[in-house]
Amino acid sequence: MNKTRKAIVDLGQDLVKKIEKKKQPQIIVPVRALSNVIYNRKTKQLELGNKKSERQFFNVAHAKKFLQTLEIAAISKELMEETKHASLRDVFYMAKRTIPNTDTNIVDEQSESDKAIEDLELITGGSREQLHVNANKNGSVAGKVTIVDKGDTIQWDKMGSGGWSIPSNVEEIKFKKMQAKYVLYMEKAAVWERLHEDKFWEKHKCIIMSSQGQTTRGIRRLLQRLSSEHKLPIYVLADFDPYGVYIYSVIKYGSINLAHMSGKMSIPSVRFLGITADDIIKYDLKKHFIKLKDIDIARLKQIGNYEWFKDNKPWQRQFKMMKDFGAKAEIQALSSRGISFISEKYLPEKIKKNEVID
Amino acid sequence: MNKTRKAIVDLGQDLVKKIEKKKQPQIIVPVRALSNVIYNRKTKQLELGNKKSERQFFNVAHAKKFLQTLEIAAISKELMEETKHASLRDVFYMAKRTIPNTDTNIVDEQSESDKAIEDLELITGGSREQLHVNANKNGSVAGKVTIVDKGDTIQWDKMGSGGWSIPSNVEEIKFKKMQAKYVLYMEKAAVWERLHEDKFWEKHKCIIMSSQGQTTRGIRRLLQRLSSEHKLPIYVLADFDPYGVYIYSVIKYGSINLAHMSGKMSIPSVRFLGITADDIIKYDLKKHFIKLKDIDIARLKQIGNYEWFKDNKPWQRQFKMMKDFGAKAEIQALSSRGISFISEKYLPEKIKKNEVID
Repeated sequence: MNKTRKAIVDLGQDLVKKIEKKKQPQIIVPVRALSNVIYNRKTKQLELGNKKSERQFFNVAHAKKFLQTLEIAAISKELMEETKHASLRDVFYMAKRTIPNTDTNIVDEQSESDKAIEDLELITGGSREQLHVNANKNGSVAGKVTIVDKGDTIQWDKMGSGGWSIPSNVEEIKFKKMQAKYVLYMEKAAVWERLHEDKFWEKHKCIIMSSQGQTTRGIRRLLQRLSSEHKLPIYVLADFDPYGVYIYSVIKYGSINLAHMSGKMSIPSVRFLGITADDIIKYDLKKHFIKLKDIDIARLKQIGNYEWFKDNKPWQRQFKMMKDFGAKAEIQALSSRGISFISEKYLPEKIKKNEVID
Repeated sequence: MNKTRKAIVDLGQDLVKKIEKKKQPQIIVPVRALSNVIYNRKTKQLELGNKKSERQFFNVAHAKKFLQTLEIAAISKELMEETKHASLRDVFYMAKRTIPNTDTNIVDEQSESDKAIEDLELITGGSREQLHVNANKNGSVAGKVTIVDKGDTIQWDKMGSGGWSIPSNVEEIKFKKMQAKYVLYMEKAAVWERLHEDKFWEKHKCIIMSSQGQTTRGIRRLLQRLSSEHKLPIYVLADFDPYGVYIYSVIKYGSINLAHMSGKMSIPSVRFLGITADDIIKYDLKKHFIKLKDIDIARLKQIGNYEWFKDNKPWQRQFKMMKDFGAKAEIQALSSRGISFISEKYLPEKIKKNEVID
């Protein structure tokens, strides 16, 4: 029995013991709220503090959450036993039923089952994926790597124009042959297709990876495994805008609502490759500026005040320049210099000169 | 020289001739507006009517659009010659520059270059992909098929848990080995992962394909090629809601703003597999209803009035039942009957009994 499954079984057995001893059945869960999120300057990760809350069965305010936690634990245990994986939405529907002899549903909204799963991550020490609950899948990868997954040998350098589609759960993937020297992660699928068509990963012996917008958990875990198991440097290529910075921030430091997962998800060594304010000046991209909206300016201020950015001079300089420009710029603005400018000049030069922001 | 490239060259040469003869340089473009979109009951496709508009160089109202069309034609020709593909966003940045000795940009908004590309599809008879301009990529595929793409042999049944990532452009793919009997297309990546984990495509000798939300052009073309070149039946699995019906409608009949592309994009033989109102009753899914919002009701009415649905009794029955329920339901509601209910019972039974809506 693996660790996560054992933790679920222990949770149940512990509660049975309490009941047999006629003690109050209760679960202790660390508090997941900004008030209990700490930025650890040493590990460069968001972490949970020590605040804990009790969830008691014989307490009207706790009883429903107590029940939800146990119901989701039972679903997770069943999934593990059947060696099947469910999505968050599936788990919601599996848990949604009326408690006998009442008008009350165990869960009414997906947010309730989602929270119970996050609590179980904390209780068991296992990730959502290890609880057999998957997030959405998205994204493609290509590069000088061969993996084994579900018995199939998959060559990331023999995937035609499409690439390998990154699953929601990458825990079981085995790296069989690793010839890549670094990973280039980009927020835009169109940029990925540009680099793929130009055989960037072949020329530069690397891995190119992308989602579309938000970085999925599958991608974050894959990047994390490539960083920790193969010591590959990870570069993030994003727009010069608050959203692009946030994409980088989540990959590097973790996210506030998943602070308890930082150890498994965040990659302190990741570096921001561009687009930067300096690129805009150097490559004359000002004519492709897009004016910052009020909401962008507010977001920029908020990000600048994050504890992990507050004393970071290179980033504060970027934020100030973005504010002074009053404008943002997209990766694709580089196409104004020629369709393959990004793969033939921009990226090779920046990587060679190590023009990154840390 | 291929047909599309030749058409671009012809366009340019024709204009040069007109100029040399001191005639007005002009381009004739069919009108792309709802007023010129016709539903062809025989082919079951949306088509463009015969209305045409002239775009003249020596006409203040036309000059800018004339210039935009030519600029995009030049970019497309260059891309074809370099055998490179650009995204819509790339093309916008490539076209965006100031006309010498003026304050005017060739394009200011991406919508302008997008429209010029659509016009060029009409003028050349080639698709956007044939003009070397790609839409966004998204989606995964797995199944009993082997393809050759960019010199790589790719087995869709050896892709581990991820699947092959569908590129934005599938025109050059060659089908090498086809053992699939049908294609199941679903709107949700999470449902795809469910069926993939259950090895649905292996047991039922089929192809499973999904995007997330909107069906990309790459996917539509891939479905179309599987339908026309391999005569595979295509089933659509979507939510029971107006959005799910619209996903089906676009795949089957084409979309209003791409009516000129229907021949290459739409698949009149595609059938809707579910979720239907009848499924909801049969499988007792009413407790998982989600109330229709005003916007859903308005959309439902609009879809019901589309010419291609207006006289379709099975669909009108579904629309009426949705309205009477006042509610919609998601595919994942089936998970309430067990995590693999969809792959072990729901889908095999429906396909066997041919319970489809046409």
